[in-house]
Amino acid sequence: MTRIQLIQSIRERGSYLCVGLDPDLDKVPAHLLGEEDPIFAFNKEIIDATRDLCVAYKLNTAFYECYGVEGWRALERTVSHIGQDHFLIADAKRGDIGNTSTQYAKAFFERLPFDAVTVAPYMGADSVKPFLAFDGKWAIVLGLTSNPGAADFELQEAGGMPLYERVLSTVSGWGHPDNLMFVVGATQASAFVRIRKLVPDHFLLVPGVGAQGGSLREISEKAANSDLGLLVNVSRGITYAGKGEDFASAARAAAQAYQQEMQPYVDKILRVKIIK
Amino acid sequence: MTRIQLIQSIRERGSYLCVGLDPDLDKVPAHLLGEEDPIFAFNKEIIDATRDLCVAYKLNTAFYECYGVEGWRALERTVSHIGQDHFLIADAKRGDIGNTSTQYAKAFFERLPFDAVTVAPYMGADSVKPFLAFDGKWAIVLGLTSNPGAADFELQEAGGMPLYERVLSTVSGWGHPDNLMFVVGATQASAFVRIRKLVPDHFLLVPGVGAQGGSLREISEKAANSDLGLLVNVSRGITYAGKGEDFASAARAAAQAYQQEMQPYVDKILRVKIIK
Repeated sequence: MTRIQLIQSIRERGSYLCVGLDPDLDKVPAHLLGEEDPIFAFNKEIIDATRDLCVAYKLNTAFYECYGVEGWRALERTVSHIGQDHFLIADAKRGDIGNTSTQYAKAFFERLPFDAVTVAPYMGADSVKPFLAFDGKWAIVLGLTSNPGAADFELQEAGGMPLYERVLSTVSGWGHPDNLMFVVGATQASAFVRIRKLVPDHFLLVPGVGAQGGSLREISEKAANSDLGLLVNVSRGITYAGKGEDFASAARAAAQAYQQEMQPYVDKILRVKIIK
Repeated sequence: MTRIQLIQSIRERGSYLCVGLDPDLDKVPAHLLGEEDPIFAFNKEIIDATRDLCVAYKLNTAFYECYGVEGWRALERTVSHIGQDHFLIADAKRGDIGNTSTQYAKAFFERLPFDAVTVAPYMGADSVKPFLAFDGKWAIVLGLTSNPGAADFELQEAGGMPLYERVLSTVSGWGHPDNLMFVVGATQASAFVRIRKLVPDHFLLVPGVGAQGGSLREISEKAANSDLGLLVNVSRGITYAGKGEDFASAARAAAQAYQQEMQPYVDKILRVKIIK
């Protein structure tokens, strides 16, 4: 999916919501556990209940790998069920020496139909660039993450600025806003103004709203750019909004609340853009 | 596998060789491509030809994920064939927020029988510590990697020292030499003396010998500690030593050459240790 298509999709759905599909069999409603593939059964109902309210789905590979071959099969079935109308993110946080990163890129971009993979920047250019070499595909590189551990290295001083700022300014030179995004956690709202000076044109993937405590309003006001430029991810706040047989309608209600909060920002930013 | 068991295994086999199993169907000998599971068939012959010459096998997950469910199945069959007598490393370079890192740890330590997972440090403590919470299991954290991209962030100044030194000194406080190792590339030999001051007791996993140009002699002389403290990985230099039907015996010959170069260091360091 191209940047223009993504922006068009945000405008049409009045939403920059990304739904995180991180299924955990300990939390999946009991009535699904008898299904042949309970992970897929769970995802399918969440997808069908939220499809018109979001523009992206993000699958964290950890929640599939922990079920081995069955988990990997559930991941394949899930992305196939989502189809081509959503921006598909493999939240895999990969990154390795060049020839190995190419194998990861093939795994997610060729073997599977993902639009984007999240990438860890620690190993530098040859670990990131292979993900930028596939037409119409994206690398989403970790900038400043939403977890407490961000303080250990990302926020440490590195040559006169925090390490994550060095990452944003260095990595943004390896790609362009049509094939490169950055992860910035919603819990880091105070940093968004500075971040937008470093990467004014790139989309940001923003996790940490909901269970981790980030504010959708604060992000939208501080971090949107003239393309909107945000994908705000909510995982547990949507998928586990309900715990019983009505979990899908509870998920829809939660997603709808986010979409409704997003609509005015979309109207304001992208309607102005059309008029221009 | 415990540290004592690993050292015992190094002593018995006169080897600190780790064989990297990164199968690529474009490089697997043609006569295996007709097998039902050519990746496993390839790995099985390599394992059977090198089992007595190495103490560890390292599987880079990228080379399995790129074949989807079939690749993941080949990975499961491979680790099952290796069994319990070798230190089993999932070279996965994972790392995510706490609850997600726990899912990755379960994937490799519970669902699969790996002894160790390689972990990227960028996201800090809560992304690394979950891998240290499993009895008898190990995190192998990226320190200074063997690729050119190491210059982009790892070698950049961070608070008065290169970032990778900050990673070594910070992360070593999160675990201990019985559950934590570090990756240090063989191409970075000039840094080994300094590294051993920061982490004198930890095992180092050293990739980059062979195809990437690192010297086994230089590593052994500069980076061994009184436990030996090294796992030197060779992937392509062994698995693709031969390209025809005799690939397994070519792999054995290559592994044997490494083992024979290692034997004197093992004799010197671990024999002295017994006498003590």
